[in-house]
Amino acid sequence: MTSTISDQLQNLGVTTFRPSNRQADQMRDVRITRNFTKHAEGSVLVEFGDTKVICTASVERGVPRFLRGSGSGWVTAEYGMLPRATGSRNGREAARGKQGGRTLEIQRLIGRSLRACMDLKKLGENTITIDCDVIQADGGTRTASITGAYVALLDAIAFLKKDKHGAMKGDPVKYGIAAISVGIYKGQAVLDLDYDEDSDAETDMNVVMTEKGGFVEVQGTAEGEPYSQEELNAMLELAKKGIAELTAMQKKALA
Amino acid sequence: MTSTISDQLQNLGVTTFRPSNRQADQMRDVRITRNFTKHAEGSVLVEFGDTKVICTASVERGVPRFLRGSGSGWVTAEYGMLPRATGSRNGREAARGKQGGRTLEIQRLIGRSLRACMDLKKLGENTITIDCDVIQADGGTRTASITGAYVALLDAIAFLKKDKHGAMKGDPVKYGIAAISVGIYKGQAVLDLDYDEDSDAETDMNVVMTEKGGFVEVQGTAEGEPYSQEELNAMLELAKKGIAELTAMQKKALA
Amino acid sequence: MTSTISDQLQNLGVTTFRPSNRQADQMRDVRITRNFTKHAEGSVLVEFGDTKVICTASVERGVPRFLRGSGSGWVTAEYGMLPRATGSRNGREAARGKQGGRTLEIQRLIGRSLRACMDLKKLGENTITIDCDVIQADGGTRTASITGAYVALLDAIAFLKKDKHGAMKGDPVKYGIAAISVGIYKGQAVLDLDYDEDSDAETDMNVVMTEKGGFVEVQGTAEGEPYSQEELNAMLELAKKGIAELTAMQKKALA
Amino acid sequence: MTSTISDQLQNLGVTTFRPSNRQADQMRDVRITRNFTKHAEGSVLVEFGDTKVICTASVERGVPRFLRGSGSGWVTAEYGMLPRATGSRNGREAARGKQGGRTLEIQRLIGRSLRACMDLKKLGENTITIDCDVIQADGGTRTASITGAYVALLDAIAFLKKDKHGAMKGDPVKYGIAAISVGIYKGQAVLDLDYDEDSDAETDMNVVMTEKGGFVEVQGTAEGEPYSQEELNAMLELAKKGIAELTAMQKKALA
Amino acid sequence: MTSTISDQLQNLGVTTFRPSNRQADQMRDVRITRNFTKHAEGSVLVEFGDTKVICTASVERGVPRFLRGSGSGWVTAEYGMLPRATGSRNGREAARGKQGGRTLEIQRLIGRSLRACMDLKKLGENTITIDCDVIQADGGTRTASITGAYVALLDAIAFLKKDKHGAMKGDPVKYGIAAISVGIYKGQAVLDLDYDEDSDAETDMNVVMTEKGGFVEVQGTAEGEPYSQEELNAMLELAKKGIAELTAMQKKALA
Amino acid sequence: MTSTISDQLQNLGVTTFRPSNRQADQMRDVRITRNFTKHAEGSVLVEFGDTKVICTASVERGVPRFLRGSGSGWVTAEYGMLPRATGSRNGREAARGKQGGRTLEIQRLIGRSLRACMDLKKLGENTITIDCDVIQADGGTRTASITGAYVALLDAIAFLKKDKHGAMKGDPVKYGIAAISVGIYKGQAVLDLDYDEDSDAETDMNVVMTEKGGFVEVQGTAEGEPYSQEELNAMLELAKKGIAELTAMQKKALA
Repeated sequence: MTSTISDQLQNLGVTTFRPSNRQADQMRDVRITRNFTKHAEGSVLVEFGDTKVICTASVERGVPRFLRGSGSGWVTAEYGMLPRATGSRNGREAARGKQGGRTLEIQRLIGRSLRACMDLKKLGENTITIDCDVIQADGGTRTASITGAYVALLDAIAFLKKDKHGAMKGDPVKYGIAAISVGIYKGQAVLDLDYDEDSDAETDMNVVMTEKGGFVEVQGTAEGEPYSQEELNAMLELAKKGIAELTAMQKKALA
Repeated sequence: MTSTISDQLQNLGVTTFRPSNRQADQMRDVRITRNFTKHAEGSVLVEFGDTKVICTASVERGVPRFLRGSGSGWVTAEYGMLPRATGSRNGREAARGKQGGRTLEIQRLIGRSLRACMDLKKLGENTITIDCDVIQADGGTRTASITGAYVALLDAIAFLKKDKHGAMKGDPVKYGIAAISVGIYKGQAVLDLDYDEDSDAETDMNVVMTEKGGFVEVQGTAEGEPYSQEELNAMLELAKKGIAELTAMQKKALA
Repeated sequence: MTSTISDQLQNLGVTTFRPSNRQADQMRDVRITRNFTKHAEGSVLVEFGDTKVICTASVERGVPRFLRGSGSGWVTAEYGMLPRATGSRNGREAARGKQGGRTLEIQRLIGRSLRACMDLKKLGENTITIDCDVIQADGGTRTASITGAYVALLDAIAFLKKDKHGAMKGDPVKYGIAAISVGIYKGQAVLDLDYDEDSDAETDMNVVMTEKGGFVEVQGTAEGEPYSQEELNAMLELAKKGIAELTAMQKKALA
Repeated sequence: MTSTISDQLQNLGVTTFRPSNRQADQMRDVRITRNFTKHAEGSVLVEFGDTKVICTASVERGVPRFLRGSGSGWVTAEYGMLPRATGSRNGREAARGKQGGRTLEIQRLIGRSLRACMDLKKLGENTITIDCDVIQADGGTRTASITGAYVALLDAIAFLKKDKHGAMKGDPVKYGIAAISVGIYKGQAVLDLDYDEDSDAETDMNVVMTEKGGFVEVQGTAEGEPYSQEELNAMLELAKKGIAELTAMQKKALA
Repeated sequence: MTSTISDQLQNLGVTTFRPSNRQADQMRDVRITRNFTKHAEGSVLVEFGDTKVICTASVERGVPRFLRGSGSGWVTAEYGMLPRATGSRNGREAARGKQGGRTLEIQRLIGRSLRACMDLKKLGENTITIDCDVIQADGGTRTASITGAYVALLDAIAFLKKDKHGAMKGDPVKYGIAAISVGIYKGQAVLDLDYDEDSDAETDMNVVMTEKGGFVEVQGTAEGEPYSQEELNAMLELAKKGIAELTAMQKKALA
Repeated sequence: MTSTISDQLQNLGVTTFRPSNRQADQMRDVRITRNFTKHAEGSVLVEFGDTKVICTASVERGVPRFLRGSGSGWVTAEYGMLPRATGSRNGREAARGKQGGRTLEIQRLIGRSLRACMDLKKLGENTITIDCDVIQADGGTRTASITGAYVALLDAIAFLKKDKHGAMKGDPVKYGIAAISVGIYKGQAVLDLDYDEDSDAETDMNVVMTEKGGFVEVQGTAEGEPYSQEELNAMLELAKKGIAELTAMQKKALA
């Protein structure tokens, strides 16, 4: 992580209003580990502090029925949490017999975001399924998932490029994407909320952006009081800073 | 509807780039009919042009298990579409055995938005369930649902106020809310997308605001190209205009 | 409604034993509104007093697997109730994850009755799905559904007739059908039970008949004491009268 | 079986229009075997010709939530078919994850019929569950089930009578019930349709009656052409004859 | 049953430590009844004392998708219990909406065991489904099921042999199989546990063997204390004796 | 790993018949990492070569309904696989809406094995839930799960020991357990099959033993030819050797 001035302040004993003693614009330590498991075409462990998500990309020939014969490929995502990824155990969705609304909402967001950065025509009739499985949760699992999933996706595409029979028609990636959460915590805009902040935040906003600074998704929810245009602007500024840092880390990991 | 200048232009044969020939900042005709069905404590038919949603509010004594004994009430929402509310028939969710991801996402949004405008402590240990059932869809069903649900909610609260045993502790409504969709269509920001525009829009954004102009939810999705800060700002400006109009209509309906 | 003598008696202050002050052989006001929603090939709002059901008919090319290649068409029905169509809210079947036994029983009855009036061979390999969704319930929803569904079905068939590629082979409708409930209430046979009567009736009977007076379905259930042959006969006589009135109204609506 | 004249005719080589060579008013051989399995409080194997159903009655202290504290008991029924009870194998409902509409419809009918012959107040807060499981099907499984279930129910009530702590308040059985199918086959009314007839019948009617000749349920469905009042009357006459014979057999079995 | 010495001892009033007064190495009376129901290609009622299971074998042309075109056949099994096959009623799996873990485990065991005795290539592209439905349970239902299922399977294969179009390529049965339970009860190895013993046994072991003495499945579970190698050996010796007896009975039944 | 002689042989270029070049009696590298995730009372990553399973133990006050008031505790287990833990992607069980038969079978085995090593009375009315989630599979996931779960269980019990209000009544652990797979591969008994061997093995056997050498579970399945008593004995000998090694590793990890 790079915000060296705030790091130095912390070393000097200067404390901040955030439970983690981070500066308002400071992200947690982010780590991106490729080839985390051996079977998947892309496999990434992404860590935003204590939030840890395994993102795998699986390549399959063929596409869902609604795309057959279209020449176009498909990218989709599924999301899950190990039952004890959280402070108290959550019932296993497989045992309860259905995925909850939160899970479905998150996996729809991940899939939509990844498709937004792709030219599916160039992918050819291949399907890439991204599984994001949270093994430890400490806030921001959906944005960590998107950030890691993008790296796993690129590894899967590299696999397809090497495959003579893979039916790809050029590089299907239009631009890199990453995602970060921002929020209003104790009246101030902060970057990359952890669980302690998330539980208490007045506003929670998830932002997905391209490496070039375009917005792919903005989802901001007032948990307490409504937020103002100024607060919205402040959060988006922090998001842009965070996305720039994440984009750099993704590039480094993929180098 | 009030944008009289654009109406007059249309009467003069001036056409716009929108399929409905509306101006960029012009909403569809909105109608709010209270007491639409007879059993519910609040029952509203809300129409945004050809989008028609029945919003009922049902009052029940008691709260879900996680709130029992807390003195606090609960507001929740469910959303559904009649199978042939749309251009081609969708399978009935009850027959398929589960609610789809889109449905769950929408009903979570409606419930969250309504709770945001309430002081649940003042509601007492009562539960209000809002059912939003789309009988005809033409784009914008989730924002129409929120706008109508707020009116049905107020009728349910009026019912509770009259009830001596209702356990309310003062007026639980903190501020009115309404919702509207905006988007980027043919490169321009437009207000209140109908189905034809929605299918083609580059960006689709749903905005929930209070009557005082605070943001409750902002959800903006790039369907095609990413959107810029300027486009985001333009969409939010239109949303504010739309919310102001909707707030006035809600007040008129409730008068 | 036509029973003018009983109407005049009521106007004179003569009261009857029925909660609604109707004569034993008097139906509620029935209204049939075609083209109620805009997308479906047939869309009817049917009202039996305060019972209101939206019946839509959706045309789809092709037939279920068991009929493919047979040259024969298919007509099927689904039934649902909005959660607050009733006095107290019923859990949404889509949320509970299955349709209840009552729902399945009713939709099987509707589908069977509609198929009974059709020559499916003449329909060609088309499927017509009838959705009957109760938006307000006050007794007799299944018989109102069948009566309205028949009108929606005719509109769907008219749509197919105009369609050059629709594969119809002549008019598939053999005869009109309608349905009405009868029962034994306070020891007397009555026509068209509303909810107040239905809850208290000794016997409840649903009768589906053709316009020519043939029986398609008779389903009579003793809720309290068993019923006698004489009571059965009396109920069927009332049913015949009611069906004749409904048939006339259907014809008028379709004119 | 008792129709000795028709039996003698058959022995003389006189054939009838029915595939089974029975007379129009002749039932199949019916056998009722009590104590068929050892665990249940009532256990009956009922056979109508080749239709064989195991009916067990299970006694449980307590009642469903909606009756707790009411002092009233409950009788309910469940119905199932072994997958290969029929000519070709049907998928197991437990494996498919739900009971079909036909199953639910039948078990609702059985439960309703059994409750109709009971004074549930006298049963006290006990629940009797009747399971009707078809091990071989040849038409008429629902009417055989009701006829056998009544005998199993009586055995369960005898068990409760002997139980000092059973909470019964007098004999809860108001009158005996039995059930039989009738129909119109090749233009004639016939009694007790087997599978060959059922598949071809113009009308199929199930009748549940008390031993005293009162109607509990009449469900008549036109499979082909609508049926007339005369045909309805003819079927009911046959049903009365059949019920009288079944009542006698039940009494003999219970003696 | 053949253990004549122990039978004679019992007749002389010599009692054993087993609740059923059987010798340690004595099986219950076993009965195998072919052609128990009329529709299935193989239908067997197998009884191990009071444990009674209907095993049917259903032949279907074609194979599951993963075998299509392979020329190989398939054998699979499903298992169920009537709700009141046991001392207290178990909820019906079809009503609960899923098969329990115990059910799935048992039907996987039955299917695997039957496939182990078959050359599926010789079966041709046919599927044989074995349904094992317990109508009365008294311990050992899974081993009784396998023993009876093998006989039903042979009848189904005999049916296929007679069928010119059946696509069989020689006799697909490699060797007969049978199954028996053994256990440690009151410190001693015993053969063929009934329910009373099973509930109290320290160890419960199910053994599937070929007629030639090869092991197909051994599943031994310590219910109380762990078991030793000596106990394991003693149980397997008893199992071999039991399997030899069952094999003889199967051959006699099939003769 | 300790089989140093075979290691030295491999270093000298001596190859074996196993794909992994292990000796017949040689286990894969086993690693047990405690405190793998931060929230659970016990959290272990267990690795058997490339098979990697996260085992967490979650402590909850109270017990399932059937144990309430008994003073006894409960231990249960759930098992899952990440969709891409395997060579090709498996559908997510949560998305399919149910756990498969294999999953249920394995989690029942894990739970049963862990309860076998416990005195549940001493646990008091606490529930420990063990989640075994496979993040990478290469054969032997169920035995690795049991081996790791035991270590996580001990950590959870240590947590309870420190808790004054934990209601424990002495140490509930009776003896340590571990589990290993053995099999017949290319005609020879081998220890600890990996995926390549497992797919090809003639026999696959899972053995759960106590640290003192007692058998808790033996489950041996002939995948190809039946196995003989001699082969069974040879497999059990290998299992004993493996269990001794695993027990030592568990003790070391827990030290």
